[in-house]
Amino acid sequence: MFRPQIKVLDCTVRDGGLINKWQFSDDFVRKVFIALSKAGIDYMEMGYKSSEKYFSRDENGAWKFCTEEDLKRIIGDYDHKMKLSAMVDIGRIDSEDISPKKDSVLDMIRVACYAKEMDKGISLAHQCLDKGYEITINLMAVSKVLERDLDEALDDLSKSHVPVVYLVDSFGAMYSEQIHFLAKKYFAALPGKELGIHAHNNQQLAFANTIEAIIAGVNRIDATLYGMGRGAGNCPLELLLSFLKNPKFDIRPLIEVIQEIFIPIKAETEWGYHIPYMITGTLNEHPRSAMKIMESKKMPNLREYYEELRDGTPLD
Amino acid sequence: MFRPQIKVLDCTVRDGGLINKWQFSDDFVRKVFIALSKAGIDYMEMGYKSSEKYFSRDENGAWKFCTEEDLKRIIGDYDHKMKLSAMVDIGRIDSEDISPKKDSVLDMIRVACYAKEMDKGISLAHQCLDKGYEITINLMAVSKVLERDLDEALDDLSKSHVPVVYLVDSFGAMYSEQIHFLAKKYFAALPGKELGIHAHNNQQLAFANTIEAIIAGVNRIDATLYGMGRGAGNCPLELLLSFLKNPKFDIRPLIEVIQEIFIPIKAETEWGYHIPYMITGTLNEHPRSAMKIMESKKMPNLREYYEELRDGTPLD
Repeated sequence: MFRPQIKVLDCTVRDGGLINKWQFSDDFVRKVFIALSKAGIDYMEMGYKSSEKYFSRDENGAWKFCTEEDLKRIIGDYDHKMKLSAMVDIGRIDSEDISPKKDSVLDMIRVACYAKEMDKGISLAHQCLDKGYEITINLMAVSKVLERDLDEALDDLSKSHVPVVYLVDSFGAMYSEQIHFLAKKYFAALPGKELGIHAHNNQQLAFANTIEAIIAGVNRIDATLYGMGRGAGNCPLELLLSFLKNPKFDIRPLIEVIQEIFIPIKAETEWGYHIPYMITGTLNEHPRSAMKIMESKKMPNLREYYEELRDGTPLD
Repeated sequence: MFRPQIKVLDCTVRDGGLINKWQFSDDFVRKVFIALSKAGIDYMEMGYKSSEKYFSRDENGAWKFCTEEDLKRIIGDYDHKMKLSAMVDIGRIDSEDISPKKDSVLDMIRVACYAKEMDKGISLAHQCLDKGYEITINLMAVSKVLERDLDEALDDLSKSHVPVVYLVDSFGAMYSEQIHFLAKKYFAALPGKELGIHAHNNQQLAFANTIEAIIAGVNRIDATLYGMGRGAGNCPLELLLSFLKNPKFDIRPLIEVIQEIFIPIKAETEWGYHIPYMITGTLNEHPRSAMKIMESKKMPNLREYYEELRDGTPLD
């Protein structure tokens, strides 16, 4: 699949940080940054931009905040063509905490929001647009949104100045048919806008669903190194690059950095395909309770966990 | 996806045995047998049927041979409705080593063969048919077969009495578009025959490609518990059952047996998504050299491994 319009965004540090509260060393983040840059990746998402009014640096690593100082420590004077982004969550940052683009090394702000708070999402996105950033809205957890509510959110988006909207399978619950259905719906509802895809791997479908979205015309693609990300993780960047035929990409720096730092970290950090994540994925539930099981290191009876979650009485 | 014609075959012991030379305890195989039976799986493949003229019991566990004594030790007097199968490889067993169906607990013999030896494959399959077994031919490694040779093999098959032909992605190299293309080709070339799918997970696409095949009309589906199988493994049975809507299936006995014996064995046995398998998959190569790397426990420089394999000088 060669389509020059396709842009790849790596969100390893941002989504992977949901596992370890963004406790990555500067050395780790810099190695990721350099590898992605060498591989020709279009965007690197450095983390979340959140306010220290709401979150503490004692509990969270730098990539929960992404201040200019944090970012500049990593970039240094490395000559790169990659654009940099940060994600913001509604209610976890105020517009005044986001400096104008001219004072930032960030190129793009991605606003994550749920359908029910689309008004707040669009408002924050417009403020970032006014500050000079590229913006996107990542409409989360749509596998749980009733079609009428989704249509309303898409209608709001169609009237906004947001140029890029992401289809997000937060729970890793979707099959290719649903990706295809939703991509078609989004394109129809959002004329003139670009679509993106962000998939989770609970059912080992993150890469396949990403391919399905690409076939459906989606051009903004999220992936992470070695699939690192919350719960079952994401679409592995190294697989995506093998699929995309485009001379600007080079998979080899990714293989190097995976061998150097991701294979070791995987041995001690639980992301990827595990039965608790499979269960929340197939039942279309938030991975919260599965993450608690994985963190506890003591598995409960998984058959009972499945039955309880299926019957509506989750463990948490 | 509810289609009553779909029949699921579990080949955990057969394909998983390629990792450990079929050194499974009787207790392990019996637990798998009972779990599959309770889950409503249609067929269990117990292993390979091979001749002790060619292979030694010192090196290989019972499930390389699947004698009647081996099989009866597992089944005992357990009341089950599941059919049992064994796979045979060309040149690794002689027809006279396969007893007539009336003297066997096996219901089906699956003949694995390459396109270039289709004449031998059909001949062996016909002999098994004459002995009273259900038969299939599993046409391996088609991602490496030139289209003219594939057409000839399919033409031979179309003239045979073999009722079921499997599309096999031995190297885990195919994307959904190739599955779709080949399923269409097989259906066109093999009127009146059923198709099957056997996928490998090198690119995390085994489940997705299995779904793609089902959508294309394939009704005979291979999967394994927790994806256990050679190299990157296979389509996970627990994911497949969640996808298939059919009241005859129950996923819960599978979750139980996975927790009891597969999660522990996974901690010490290397199947699943690993970069060496990803590399052979994306480069459409046999996983042989990747398996050597994984067994050696000492990773070579994976970037160099990738470059050498890509450029045609594999390490092995």
